[in-house]
Amino acid sequence: MKKLRDIGEDALIQRLIKHAPQSSDLCEGPGDDCAVVSNDSDTTSLQLLKTDAMVEGIHYEISSEPHRVGKKAISRVISDFAAMGGTPERFLITIALPPDREIAWVEDLYKGMGEQICQYDALLAGGETCSIPEGSSAVISVSATGRVPAERLVTRSGGNIGDKIIVTGKLGGSIKGKHLDFTPRIKEAKWLATHYKPSAMMDVSDGLAKDLTRLAHASGCGIQLKTDSIPITDGCSIQQALTDGEDYELLMTMNPDVASRMMDQWTSSFPSLPITVIGELVSLEQGQQLDGGWEHFKPASG
Amino acid sequence: MKKLRDIGEDALIQRLIKHAPQSSDLCEGPGDDCAVVSNDSDTTSLQLLKTDAMVEGIHYEISSEPHRVGKKAISRVISDFAAMGGTPERFLITIALPPDREIAWVEDLYKGMGEQICQYDALLAGGETCSIPEGSSAVISVSATGRVPAERLVTRSGGNIGDKIIVTGKLGGSIKGKHLDFTPRIKEAKWLATHYKPSAMMDVSDGLAKDLTRLAHASGCGIQLKTDSIPITDGCSIQQALTDGEDYELLMTMNPDVASRMMDQWTSSFPSLPITVIGELVSLEQGQQLDGGWEHFKPASG
Repeated sequence: MKKLRDIGEDALIQRLIKHAPQSSDLCEGPGDDCAVVSNDSDTTSLQLLKTDAMVEGIHYEISSEPHRVGKKAISRVISDFAAMGGTPERFLITIALPPDREIAWVEDLYKGMGEQICQYDALLAGGETCSIPEGSSAVISVSATGRVPAERLVTRSGGNIGDKIIVTGKLGGSIKGKHLDFTPRIKEAKWLATHYKPSAMMDVSDGLAKDLTRLAHASGCGIQLKTDSIPITDGCSIQQALTDGEDYELLMTMNPDVASRMMDQWTSSFPSLPITVIGELVSLEQGQQLDGGWEHFKPASG
Repeated sequence: MKKLRDIGEDALIQRLIKHAPQSSDLCEGPGDDCAVVSNDSDTTSLQLLKTDAMVEGIHYEISSEPHRVGKKAISRVISDFAAMGGTPERFLITIALPPDREIAWVEDLYKGMGEQICQYDALLAGGETCSIPEGSSAVISVSATGRVPAERLVTRSGGNIGDKIIVTGKLGGSIKGKHLDFTPRIKEAKWLATHYKPSAMMDVSDGLAKDLTRLAHASGCGIQLKTDSIPITDGCSIQQALTDGEDYELLMTMNPDVASRMMDQWTSSFPSLPITVIGELVSLEQGQQLDGGWEHFKPASG
């Protein structure tokens, strides 16, 4: 019998989504950063839905400060709302923990989550705690609703041949600490979606190589990357920038003229955050193959 | 350092909710079956939010058919929407699994979830799969949005002294199979909320003793139970009916006159489902203490 490690997460999701009822009022269903739900009574605004889980030993170590772990759990979801041009509204938090976990650990985790929810003007709507057997890895599952004005919605699938590929910040080496302490690019994404709307956008969570491949695939385009222009975190290799993941930067495509005007204005709005053109979308035939990046269930590749 | 097993789930939640920002547009926040969100642009309708997790070895056994496990994961959440008089709309599903899990198991799990989502006219909006270390217990976390007309919303906190305490179905012994195959009481709850609105309602998930205590506490009342009128599953003891849990029946309180009229009509609408008056709400001083029932993190009591 085939097991999960034989096929990996992406192929599993392709198998699973055909079993579940979806509908036409989902503008974007499974596959984008968030699900997008339209509403008959208010066509100017769309609801965003997102769920995201962190597993102890995979997304954080038991030795990490629980306050930072909590902050990360919330920030990951906020980053997904940013990636679609939206903002978070209400959070539901589920934590599955072994009975021997110290109460102080759980309280610090929740403090970190609460502060980050507050920081982004969102609210806690509810949640659940449940026990797992001793020795099992804790799981923190965060779901949230969000909102985006209909005209600001950006998905993964709108990229066109000739669009510039652009990324914020620097990539690689997140494991040294940024993966716990990153800043979701809410402000920047809102500014972009309002003034220089990207044709497609997502956040870089599984590594540039894997995530850019997903964006290009969703847009029906190929990728032409200028490898030497990729912004690399100090002390990291190009390979790390391509495959480490957990950068939580914005990855977008943009019409070249819009991109040129946007780049002229970026620095005055966000002086401390780099933004870089790293390539362009091309036809499928002209596209290059990018390998590597994080995929659940599959053994890490060397 | 104090650990989770020293205080249990209810005391933990009391500690956690003070760390998280909540707001006045949450009609009901943490503590009820669902969170209830009002909407300025449509005051006739309320959004319901719910998250619920199942842990392998606690809520189901690895030997259980995955199709039934999937059905249960969805039905538990639907039962919570029913308990507030509402209906489910969109589901987000997170499954955390070890890499050696067979793909066929996961597909059958998803089929069970998909069929049950369909059965109740809801939709899958998105989800996530992630890997956990070998040997860890799988976790299935289900979040959903739902809706209830504002005038039909029933919470846990509206019970009044003198109200009858009423329960659907029979209680106890769910572990023999009902915990996997129960029918969420959506139809019945809608009928009740429309025609004979309960003063308070919830579903029985942790056992009548624990859940009725929660309802009475939320309503600021005491409990007077007619123990010999509690409807008991064939072959079970009164103790099992009080403490087994996972019955997923509706537990409600109702003005005595409304209750009397409702009971006259019940059988013609739902001929195969018993409904029973099992006691009444009294003042706190006159109330009796009910012990037992399921609580996460605490060792099972004898």
